[in-house]
Parts: sequence; structure tokens; C-alpha cells
Amino acid sequence: MRQRVLVPWEHNLTNLPEGVEGSLYSGTGEPTVDLDDVGFYVVPYGRTQRTDLMERMPNLRAVQLLTAGYEHALPRLPEGVTLCNGRGLHDASTAEHALSLILAAQRDLPHWAGHQAERRWEPHYTRSLADSRVLILGYGSIGAALDERLRPNECGITRVARTARPEEGVHGIGELHQLLPESDIVVVLTPHTSDTTGLLGARELALLPDGALVVNVSRGPVLDTTALLNEKGRLRAALDVTDPEPLPSDHPLWEAPGVFVTPHVAGGSDTFYPRARAFVDTQLRRWANNEPLANVVAG
Amino acid sequence: MRQRVLVPWEHNLTNLPEGVEGSLYSGTGEPTVDLDDVGFYVVPYGRTQRTDLMERMPNLRAVQLLTAGYEHALPRLPEGVTLCNGRGLHDASTAEHALSLILAAQRDLPHWAGHQAERRWEPHYTRSLADSRVLILGYGSIGAALDERLRPNECGITRVARTARPEEGVHGIGELHQLLPESDIVVVLTPHTSDTTGLLGARELALLPDGALVVNVSRGPVLDTTALLNEKGRLRAALDVTDPEPLPSDHPLWEAPGVFVTPHVAGGSDTFYPRARAFVDTQLRRWANNEPLANVVAG
Repeated sequence: MRQRVLVPWEHNLTNLPEGVEGSLYSGTGEPTVDLDDVGFYVVPYGRTQRTDLMERMPNLRAVQLLTAGYEHALPRLPEGVTLCNGRGLHDASTAEHALSLILAAQRDLPHWAGHQAERRWEPHYTRSLADSRVLILGYGSIGAALDERLRPNECGITRVARTARPEEGVHGIGELHQLLPESDIVVVLTPHTSDTTGLLGARELALLPDGALVVNVSRGPVLDTTALLNEKGRLRAALDVTDPEPLPSDHPLWEAPGVFVTPHVAGGSDTFYPRARAFVDTQLRRWANNEPLANVVAG
Repeated sequence: MRQRVLVPWEHNLTNLPEGVEGSLYSGTGEPTVDLDDVGFYVVPYGRTQRTDLMERMPNLRAVQLLTAGYEHALPRLPEGVTLCNGRGLHDASTAEHALSLILAAQRDLPHWAGHQAERRWEPHYTRSLADSRVLILGYGSIGAALDERLRPNECGITRVARTARPEEGVHGIGELHQLLPESDIVVVLTPHTSDTTGLLGARELALLPDGALVVNVSRGPVLDTTALLNEKGRLRAALDVTDPEPLPSDHPLWEAPGVFVTPHVAGGSDTFYPRARAFVDTQLRRWANNEPLANVVAG
């Protein structure tokens, strides 16, 4: 039986490799197409990840996710099916949001937004990113994308990963406690695992100088929320992710002094789509040519 | 008579070149030091520019301003006195603020700040700087500093100055009308002169695509406020300078849809001070060695 690809965007249908048949499933509602002959399934991007459909595709051979996380798909992955994730597709968007949060905090943009709402013109001098010392905690592909964006900003950059990579100027996590007192800004980018839960806890936060800024665009539990609140405004924070998440309306983080919150939007910007569509095109071409797929994480 | 230097910061007193005597005047209150033998006067940075003191310094030979603008000092400049401005000292701070405003507008940060005040967690997809086409209008030293900061952000960059400089990829102002329809973001950096008043007026704004962003960190009158308001939300704006300025509390710009206002704070960040103190040190060294001063604008 000839196998079809199931793709989320019209763009991909109009770019199908020669000889490949495709159908559209955008993720909204139930699929109206026959799932029996789907060989390659691109799970539509969105909060509802329809990985359950894999079980209704008896001829499935490969699944492409558009998220970097793939744990949610593993329990339903049929035997022998290749799983690919969206690693890299969100790097530019997430690094850009991290830079936005750093600059917003340093230049007091949330404060000015509040003053605008009150029609107040009351300038004051602000901090800057220039001359600040930034520590990137978790130096993978997003860290490298942020590093590039920071470099022209006349700031110091310190890189920390699980394992030291001296040739890239990356410190090992064992040096974190020595590095924190010398950091004005810490950006959390480490994936959330059992090892990284509470990686920035009471002890680590206490090592930061007064007025230091903690930026989190990774996952909420990597930063200990209670420990941050216990600092009572000694530190500042710009958080795209929180613990708990979504943040309940009665949570003290909403009004904690020096804390700016955005609702987990770092990865979800226009930046994502052109990169994701082009990546799907490329994966389909590999599939059609029987070449190895990129970003294989299981199967 | 031996001549003294009058400097605004303790830092400069502790770094005086050998053989030079100095006194401190920070700009607050009346100077308590004898002005008769001041030969080099660094006008303290701040909203009140005490250029009137020049008239009380009979042995004055050089004046250093810490602002880029110097028109305010000219009427009082005594015959034969050299005037130097602070060109370049604000470049990093201003370029950084321009980048901050671009990112804040693209990533909806003022919107998230408003939601935080209402304890609302309601994510949506946003625009991004990546893949946007940025036009820098007025390509001098601040433009170059912004350009550097934009380059790693995966955006397009178009440079426009009064005179085309093809070897630097800079278009002449005569091409502006052709370039505006292809721009998602326009950053105004041109100095304010009689030529640049209303440089972005009704006709220019009409050429921008729907949803385009206008950033102004130059001077308010370069952008026609009425023309912007007449666009009624078709365009977005992030304005550090306004016309009139300060913006009166009853001005419609405060609540215009898609407009974010900061109160003329682009140049006034921590970035400025280390650069300004070091520059004054260098100028004093030149003065002591009878070398030509930098940034001479008159006299």
C-alpha cells in the first residue's frame, strides 16, 4: 500500500516531494481524512498534542513533533515507529524572548508601562545591559543563540553547562557557586529533569549580589519559587515560566516586588513558523528519498 | 596664573594627570569653589546645564559638555573658548534602549505587564524581531551601534542616511519612499534639524505596511504626532521622545492603541557613566599635555 504523509500546513502540501501524497490535518477538531494509509504523521503544533492518533494509523512509520519535548509522545509510540522532535525550531524565538526580558528588566520597561497607564512622565536613570555580567545557566543550542544576541551588547558573558567544555569557554555546573557572586544577571535555560529541580534554590539565590536579575525561560521548577519570594525584593526576576503554571490569580508572585511575568510565550512567536514549515519540508524530502531523518529521539 | 579643572565626579579628581589641580562641582547647588582660575570646565550632566557659570570664569579656555547636543551652550560661550560635546557617550545606552523598545513591542511586553497587574495568565502568539525587516533612519554612530546589536537577531536591516554611502550599504534619504513599504520596523535616529522636522509625516506613515512599528529615540518632532494618531492603530509605535515633551497628562498619545511610551530615558542609563568618566579622564590628559581635544564643536 502506498503511504501518505499527514501535515499541519497548506505550505507543506504545496511543497511535497515528487511522488508523495499528502493530506492536511491542522489539529483542530477530528481528522476527516482516512488514517489507515498514513506513513508519516506531523503532529500539529499547539496545546493539544494529538499523539493519540498514532494508535489509529496501522501503517505509521515515522512521527514528527514540533516541540522539543517528546516525553508526552513516548507512551503512545507504536513499536517500530521512528519519533523525531522539534529540537532547534524554538531556539531563535526563545533566545529572543530571553533577550527581551533581560532588556525590559534592565531598562525598567514594565515600570514605564505602568506609568503610561497612569499618564505619568517621570524619567529616572536605569540600569543597562551594557557592563552587566550575564551568566547563562544551561548552555545548549538556545544558550548559544542567546550568547550570539548578547555579544554586541558590551556585557560580560559566563557560560555554565552540566559538563565543562573549556574549548568553548563553558564552565561545569560544579563551579556555579563560585560564579554566582560575580553575576548581575542569571538566565535559566537548563531542561527540567530530576537533577535540575530547584537548581536555583535558597542557597544559590543568596549568593547573588543585591539587585541581581534572574531570568527563567526554561521550566518553572528549575527555580525555587518560595526561595525567590523569601528574598523579598533583594533580587529581581523576569519569568516566562512559573511553578505552579499557569500561575493562579491569588499567587504572591504576581505582585512580588521586582518580578515581571510573561505567560510562557518565549517559544510561541512568529519566529517559529517559517523555521518549522521549512524543517517539515526537509524531513518529508528525506522521507521520500529514504534518507535518514533528522532529530530522531526514539524508535 | 595656574589654571584649574572643574570636574563633576570624584573619580576624575582621583585620576588627574600629573601637575593638574582640580576641584569638584557636581552640579547641585551653587559652586563653592573659586571660579577665577578655572581653565577647563566639565559641565555636570543633568537637566540643569550650568553653562551660565562660563561667564564667571575669566580664565576659561575649554568647556566639556556631556551631552551630544551643544546648541544650548553656544549663546554663552566666551570668545576664544573651545567647546567639546559628549558625542558617542550615549551611543551604547541609546542603541540599547532602541533595541529594548523594538523587542518589547514585537514580543508584546507592555501587554504582558498590563496582564500581570490584573493577575491574568492568557498566553498568545506574538510577533518576533527575527524575520522582521528593520529600517534604521539616520545612520550615524548610534545607528551603527544599533546595527551591531540587531545583526545576530536574524532580521533584515536597511540603512538610510542623508547621503548615500554605498560602500557601507547606506541608502540616501531620497530612497526613503521606496524603502518604507518593505519595512516592518522603522527606527528614527536622525538628529532634529529644520530639515528633519516631520521627516516621518502622513505620507511616509501611509507607505508603511499594516502593523508596522515606528520606534523614536531621537527627538519628538522628527515624527509627526498628529499623522501617527490619524493612523488610528493601523501602525504601532514605541516612543522614547514625543512632541510635545514632556507629554501632558491629557495627550491622546498616552492611550493611543499600539503605542508604548517611555519618558526620554534612552540615553540615561548606567551605561553612560563609566564611558563618560573615562572620556573626561582622557580629555584632561590631552589638556595637560597640550594635545588637541576630541569632540571639538566650537571655539
